[in-house]
Amino acid sequence: MHWPTSVTIKEVAPRDGLQNEKVFISTEDKIAWINQLSYSGLKNIEITSFVNPKWIPALSDAEAVAKGITRVSDVTYTALVPNNQGLERALEANIDEVAVFMSASETHNSKNINKSIKETFPVLREVVEAAHLAGKPSRGYVSTVFACPYEGTVDIEMVIGVSETLFEMGIRELSLGDTIGAANPKQVQEVLEVLLKRFPANKLALHFHDARGTALANILASLDMGITTFDAALGGLGGCPYAPGAYGNVATDDFLYMLDGMGIQTGVNQEKLLSASRFIQDKIGKPLPSRGLQVFGLSG
Amino acid sequence: MHWPTSVTIKEVAPRDGLQNEKVFISTEDKIAWINQLSYSGLKNIEITSFVNPKWIPALSDAEAVAKGITRVSDVTYTALVPNNQGLERALEANIDEVAVFMSASETHNSKNINKSIKETFPVLREVVEAAHLAGKPSRGYVSTVFACPYEGTVDIEMVIGVSETLFEMGIRELSLGDTIGAANPKQVQEVLEVLLKRFPANKLALHFHDARGTALANILASLDMGITTFDAALGGLGGCPYAPGAYGNVATDDFLYMLDGMGIQTGVNQEKLLSASRFIQDKIGKPLPSRGLQVFGLSG
Repeated sequence: MHWPTSVTIKEVAPRDGLQNEKVFISTEDKIAWINQLSYSGLKNIEITSFVNPKWIPALSDAEAVAKGITRVSDVTYTALVPNNQGLERALEANIDEVAVFMSASETHNSKNINKSIKETFPVLREVVEAAHLAGKPSRGYVSTVFACPYEGTVDIEMVIGVSETLFEMGIRELSLGDTIGAANPKQVQEVLEVLLKRFPANKLALHFHDARGTALANILASLDMGITTFDAALGGLGGCPYAPGAYGNVATDDFLYMLDGMGIQTGVNQEKLLSASRFIQDKIGKPLPSRGLQVFGLSG
Repeated sequence: MHWPTSVTIKEVAPRDGLQNEKVFISTEDKIAWINQLSYSGLKNIEITSFVNPKWIPALSDAEAVAKGITRVSDVTYTALVPNNQGLERALEANIDEVAVFMSASETHNSKNINKSIKETFPVLREVVEAAHLAGKPSRGYVSTVFACPYEGTVDIEMVIGVSETLFEMGIRELSLGDTIGAANPKQVQEVLEVLLKRFPANKLALHFHDARGTALANILASLDMGITTFDAALGGLGGCPYAPGAYGNVATDDFLYMLDGMGIQTGVNQEKLLSASRFIQDKIGKPLPSRGLQVFGLSG
């Protein structure tokens, strides 16, 4: 097995982690927490979502959060943007990078976005092009790459088609999502073998959820295939409101523990990260899924 | 990366899983549960421990359990045996295989067994030789192979020394334990590279705990090194009374999910296993660490 000397962690907990939580974290706490993340050494933080607050009330304070945080100069602050109305709000809040999203399976795309895959493309294209005109780079999420909660295993041709279209739009990075944490290392290897013939490894990020404890094994298989960028959420926060059985993202704390142990550089400070983990666990008021946090984090 | 076509799972939950639980599972429930495991397709089950009941009250009914279960002809029923008094009880209960145990680090060995490593050898030798005379094969556990909660990283020479001595005694398999779940895949690879020069892969089992979510990643690294036997505990039960920070074993349910997805044969039926998981979770009365059980097991 082979692994790289360094890995980029894209922290998604403030968006992907909080969007499904029933507890509303106050704007003040969100800002304090994101500032902690900014000073932990993380270089990429997805801080909020400019979807309609009606759909994701937990993130209804997107503007206030984006404007309230202290921007650290070498950190990229990303926000999820579903359409042009969202983009206007995101630009007004001076977001560094715009993330668009869709699914590789029709049923999940339809439940999540209320459009067919074909109908989704022009909406995202409009967002991506307008973002670029405003000088903001874009990132694309593809959900249900490995399995759809409604359709089961997803045809790799669907993944290729959606990925190609998003790259044609001009996104600089594609995040491949195992939305319900169903993938296994062999499938990861097989899917990446196909995709890496079409797209360079440094344009792909992997986004694993941990519904069956396989997230770090899937990351290990991805590292061995040359992938060096991964999404992760502090404390293992996360889930998807439109994916039954979805569970938290791979926990940044556990992921960092593994990478540090393997001598893979990330630039992230483990203690500062764990402290930020404890902070948000306290605010949410229940033990988060991160194993390390359960074992070591609660006692201080 | 490479993986084998089949893997042997050694189920340790009735012993390693229950020994640290505060709830006493009734003898009747233990028997019913082990019978479910016997019919799940598992071929190796460690059912109890013949240590002094004063030290592990949760397993004080060792004889009754061993005599009460229905023996399935192609299943090997193992029990932990610390010394000759324990062996007498184990033989009287007609156990199929005897498991002896010690640590690769002095401090953990001393806390766990109250003897130095050197003082432990003759005690185990006596057990192993007497077991063989009685026609019972033996298995050896080495704890703290990757890290000791008191001493940190463990010198590989200590692991080699203990392993060689146990093999000299005549044990047929050595189980290498990551007692506090601290190992990472790179360390697993490095340790196995050294050990596999001395011992054949089919004589080694790996025993991972999951304190930081790395257990399945560590298993993946072990598979790639040619290891095909792993200890696991249903529901992720487990821990060690003499290892602060110890957490449950890798969950058999999550492990099986990964292996099934990768097309690796185990002979174990996922539904029967999950049903046994739910049974014991119910008796223990709290959610067990297994991810799959948390996500899927509670509702069905």
